[in-house]
This record gives sequence, structure tokens and C-alpha cells, in this order.
Amino acid sequence: MKTAIPRETIQRLPKYLAYLKEISGQQIEYISSLTIAEYFNLTPILVKKDLSKVSSIVGRPRVGFLVDNLIKDIEICLGYDNMKDALLVGVGKLGSALLSYGGFQNYGLNIVAGMDSNPNLVGTEVSGKKIFSPENAEALIKRMHIKLGIITAPAAEAQAVCDFLINAGMKGIWNFTPAHLKVPDDVVVKNENMAESLALLSVMLQKR
Amino acid sequence: MKTAIPRETIQRLPKYLAYLKEISGQQIEYISSLTIAEYFNLTPILVKKDLSKVSSIVGRPRVGFLVDNLIKDIEICLGYDNMKDALLVGVGKLGSALLSYGGFQNYGLNIVAGMDSNPNLVGTEVSGKKIFSPENAEALIKRMHIKLGIITAPAAEAQAVCDFLINAGMKGIWNFTPAHLKVPDDVVVKNENMAESLALLSVMLQKR
Repeated sequence: MKTAIPRETIQRLPKYLAYLKEISGQQIEYISSLTIAEYFNLTPILVKKDLSKVSSIVGRPRVGFLVDNLIKDIEICLGYDNMKDALLVGVGKLGSALLSYGGFQNYGLNIVAGMDSNPNLVGTEVSGKKIFSPENAEALIKRMHIKLGIITAPAAEAQAVCDFLINAGMKGIWNFTPAHLKVPDDVVVKNENMAESLALLSVMLQKR
Repeated sequence: MKTAIPRETIQRLPKYLAYLKEISGQQIEYISSLTIAEYFNLTPILVKKDLSKVSSIVGRPRVGFLVDNLIKDIEICLGYDNMKDALLVGVGKLGSALLSYGGFQNYGLNIVAGMDSNPNLVGTEVSGKKIFSPENAEALIKRMHIKLGIITAPAAEAQAVCDFLINAGMKGIWNFTPAHLKVPDDVVVKNENMAESLALLSVMLQKR
């Protein structure tokens, strides 16, 4: 059953997961796709389809799915059970905050180290994570087969950093800068544009 | 000219701004909408339209816009020149990281304090920002007319926190939890779902 999962499904799964964990904490054992659909204002057919991509367990009519099994299946599908290593580039304020944030472990992400071109930062540690120079980071990426890079460098340097990481063998880029990154077809970029979110909130609030 | 700015335009503006700041740093004085369009793979007409919503200065044919004026106009349009106060709720790992992150000031955002229901955290400080109990936070929101709330509480508590903030007078919610928040029509929610981004990257990387 686990063939290609559509992007839209993948994007909904973390929300389902958060909800399922919430109701699991409330000792609810079974859940129907209808209940999930109502909670998220989605159609039951869509939720049913999403879950069929994730879990080979078929929900029992009227009773639904066993919550804890569904949680496990979604976590496996999202690779949360399978720790992935990442390197973070650009140890400024945001970079340091992300290096210090322990919550990514719950999502199967392990930031192994930081990289910065500033010689004053190279060799230091942030929350126990060592900061490497670009040269040493490149060796680390290759040795550990790190496939995921997190870019928190200044926007003006983001493309150069991205090229460097891909050159070293990375296949996924999590971009926290507002820069527009150009990458080869076999590399995935996910933009996390907090400036964009803030802009929206800010303008919407002005209007009121 | 500055009437209603479409949501899509607002979302593109921070990207333009980052790019304009980059080229301003390279001593480039003028920019055309065509150059911006090419950089972001957008159509020139779209960029021209976006800029016409922001700036009353009309670009000179062949020469384009004065970069520094355009930067100023976009910043004013996004309210970056106009500091907005916010309260952060849920001083866990992510909450502490955001409280400590100084970069929001560049986007006109000032997180004035934190709030947490944990009595061990109330009264402490994170990067010089005081952590309030819900009761005292409510008084602070009303006294300072804080309109923006940042939620970094556990997902299971997010809706209750959201209701509490709106009740105290907030009109904008920046939601860092995967919870699906229900709000009245006059309140804006922007979801910052890092779990969703990670899920996408994780599954895409598995496929390769």
C-alpha cells in the first residue's frame, strides 16, 4: 500500500499526528476518519484516502482506527522513527536558536553540527554542537553521508552555501533565509520563510 | 495607490526586500522589474503590479527603480518601520529559542514577554524577557494593547491558549504548533508548521 504518497497528504500527516497524540493522551482508543475530518474541516473521503496511503490497517466500520496503531504508522511513514542527520550553516541568532532547540529529535531530525565561515566561531560549541569551518564541514558531510542541510546564513550568502552543500553531496535543503534558491532537479528545497509570515500578520493587523 | 494589497503580493514582498538589500549592498543603484522577475522566475507584469501597490514612485523606463527608495517603501508597506508588540505563550524549548532570537526586531516585531502556566517558570527571565502567569499576562495584554500572540505551547493546549489570548483582546496569532486553531472572523492566524516542512523533506529524501 505504501507507494507514492502525494505531497498534500504528507503535509496533512503531521497535523493528524498531533491530533491523534492529543486524543491518545485523553485515553480515547478508537477514532473514525469522520471525526478527524470534522476536526480539520476536511471531507471524510479525503481523510480516508490519506490514511489508506499510510496504514494498511483498514478502519472498522462505525468504530474506526485504533489510535495508537495509527500514530505508529504515521510516524513510520514520516520517517520519525528513523533519525536523519543534518548540518546547519550560519551560526547567527536564528542558527544558534535552532542548534539549541531540542524538539527536532521528536521528528527524527538530529542536527549533528554547525558550520560558519567566521573564524571566531569555528571550533566553538553551541549547546554541545561543534561549529566547523567550511573545509572541515565538507569532510564531515562526506564521511557521515549527511543528506540534509539547514541554511540560516544571511540571505546574500544563501545561494553560495546551497551550492556548496549540494556539491558536498546533500539532497535536501531547509532554507530559513528569504533567498530564492536554485537547485538541480534531484535536490529538494523547503522554504521556511518567517519573514513572509510576519509580513502577512503585520499587514493584516494594520488593516483592522 | 496604497489601497488593499493582495495576500499574494504581501507574501512576495519580503523576498523582493531581501534581494533588494542584497544588491543595495553591492552598490547597485537602479533595478528594473524585469531583473527582479528574472531572478524569481516570475513574469515582469506580476512584479510590476506588485511594486505599483507598494510604491508611488514609477520606475523610469529602461532604468527602473531607485533601489534604496524601493527598500524604504516595501519596509513601510510591511510595517517594519513600526514596531509591534507581541506576547509569546509556552516557554519550552522552541519558545525559549524564539524569545532569545534577536532577529525579529528587523521585521518590526518586539516580543515583550513570555507567559507560561508552569509556576516554576513564572517570574523567571529568558534573555531578559520576563515570564508571566496567565493572570498577570492578561493584565499586561490589556494595559499594553498587545495585539499579536505567538503560540509555542504544546499542541494539545494550543486552542485553549488561543481562546485566552483572543479573549484578552488579541487580533493576530502566530501559531508554531501543529494544532488546527479555530478563531473568530476578525482574528488572523498564521501557521508556522515546522513539523510539516520536516515531514516533506524527510519523505522526499527517503524516496531518493
